[in-house]
Order: sequence, then structure tokens, then C-alpha cells
Amino acid sequence: MKKFEEKTIQTEQKFKGRIITLQVDDVELPNGQTGKREIVKHPGAVAVIAITEDKKIILVEQYRKALERSIIEIPAGKIEPNEAPELTALRELEEETGYTTDKLQYIQSFATSPGFADEIIHLYLAENIVELEEKVDMDEDEFVELMHVSLNEMESMIDRKEIYDAKTAFAFLWVKNYLK
Amino acid sequence: MKKFEEKTIQTEQKFKGRIITLQVDDVELPNGQTGKREIVKHPGAVAVIAITEDKKIILVEQYRKALERSIIEIPAGKIEPNEAPELTALRELEEETGYTTDKLQYIQSFATSPGFADEIIHLYLAENIVELEEKVDMDEDEFVELMHVSLNEMESMIDRKEIYDAKTAFAFLWVKNYLK
Repeated sequence: MKKFEEKTIQTEQKFKGRIITLQVDDVELPNGQTGKREIVKHPGAVAVIAITEDKKIILVEQYRKALERSIIEIPAGKIEPNEAPELTALRELEEETGYTTDKLQYIQSFATSPGFADEIIHLYLAENIVELEEKVDMDEDEFVELMHVSLNEMESMIDRKEIYDAKTAFAFLWVKNYLK
Repeated sequence: MKKFEEKTIQTEQKFKGRIITLQVDDVELPNGQTGKREIVKHPGAVAVIAITEDKKIILVEQYRKALERSIIEIPAGKIEPNEAPELTALRELEEETGYTTDKLQYIQSFATSPGFADEIIHLYLAENIVELEEKVDMDEDEFVELMHVSLNEMESMIDRKEIYDAKTAFAFLWVKNYLK
């Protein structure tokens, strides 16, 4: 699908950070004119809908500096270099929730902000989860609080804007549709 | 909700573009240590689930340079300075689809990439849509193709990864749940 393709004339990297880079592409538009595209490159991420034995969903509250507030999300994390997304999903499940699973199922992938970023989130479902005997360390700059909530509680959190991100809003509707 | 707050020690702007800016914040973490956060600032956006008289959903195919491919999305666009999101929603509906409405209803807002960006998308439902007698111009660097699709067709587009972004994936489940 290369419809309306915007051919790259020139790419200039403007910032290279620990996690993201930013570049400005000069492009040739479909009508032959030129334009500029500001693009953030991101390694991609996974998110996990983890279902407990009593049919609750595991959520993680954490501070999001970009939003200057804490929000409640499904467990998620960045893909490490050369890491298969399924392994990232299992690793993040273990690190963030203290659970592991032998039943991890791929759901769907999507771009989070296609207008300015290439980040893709790969979404997984984790069932048959069991507590790890030994906890796995999280990244040293991550501080999270765990909770197990029902779909009804999740809906209230959406109403109160405590759940306030796309992947978790999607997860709520997905569970409501396919697991209820 | 300031749980696990990360206090800003210093902010350094690294890039200021036409649409996004990028800054690196030095922060004090909850354990007293310091860390760095790479943050993209975005003006925010709206997206519109527009339903035709025969219960189809209006979708827009466009090239997304960040992904280097075209994808199919619900109509969406950036909020202009001082523009109320509801007006953005009506404007983008008119510009991108050639339809307008007297029945625009707020659904929900969410952050698209809270790990590295402050972008919020405000989602609206447009019903009772009617074709504009005179088309409104789009941004001069936008090239899109319109389509009216059923929920079943939308599901096939998701399977084929032609629909491949979070807001449109959410919209599919939302319509399936609440409008079917």
C-alpha cells in the first residue's frame, strides 16, 4: 500500500536520545510539491491484558512525566533491541506484575500516533497466570502500583479519567467484547 | 493524582518544529534519585466516528510518513491554537469527509503514547451527517481517499493490517459495542 506515497528527498536527525530520536524529512508530495514531516522514531512496545483466575484484569498505576500525572494502564513496556515482541510481553508481565504465564496469545498491533511517530504497540492476552516465586526486578527508574480490577471497576476508572490512554481504553472494550 | 510524582529539576528544549517540540527533563524520582525523561509535546488532536444514514463508518486512507505506508483511519486532525476540541472535530469532519452534522457527541479522551508524548486524542461520534453543498478545502499537504464501510468490512481491514492505528482500532470496538 504505497498510495499517496511521500518520497524522501532528505532526512535530517535533530535529536538522538536514550529512547527516542527525532528527524525532519523533506518529502515530495503526490502533487509534486514538497513538504516537511517531523517524525519521532521509537523502538516499539508491547502491552499485556493479564487476566487473573477470578477474571480480574491486572492494571498498573504509574507517573507519566509527559502528562505530569499518574495514570492507570495495562502492563506495557518497550521492546529491547533484537527482542521478539512475545518475549517482551512475557518479560514485562513478569517484571511489572510478578506473574508469569504459559498461555500468551497475540491479539493485535497498532500505531499509537501515526501522525508524528512510528511507535507500534503489540497487544497480548495472558491467561492462566501464576505468581512468580521470586520477583524479577523492574527498571530502576520505574515506580508502579498494581491492582486487580473487574470490568465494572475499569469502566469507573475510565469515567474518572484515571484510565486515560489508548491501549488501556482499547483493552477495556476488547475484554468486554471477547472475554465477558 | 500525583502518586509517584517526578519533580522537574530542569527542562531543556532540544527541538522546536512546526507541529511538535521535544524536551529532555531532568527529574527527581520518588526514591530521591534522578533520571531523564524524553518528552514530545503535541497540540492534541480529535478523531470522529462518523456514521452514515445506512450505518456505515467513514474512513480515510492516507500516507503516514512516520510508518512509510498508507493506513486507513477514522477522520482526525490536530487542534489549532485556542480551538475548542468540539470545533476541531466538526472542522475535520467537514474538511476530510465533505459531510457536516448537527449531532456531534463527545465519547472519550485518551493519551496515545504516555511514555514519551503528551498527545491527547478527543473522540467524538457524528450522527445525522449530511453532505456539504460546497466542499471545504483540506490542508494543502493532505492527500486522502474516502470510504464508507460496514463493521464487517472494518474487521477485515484490521485483519489485513490496513487499519493499523489505536484510535481506529478503538473506534471499531466502540461501534461494535455501543451502536450495533
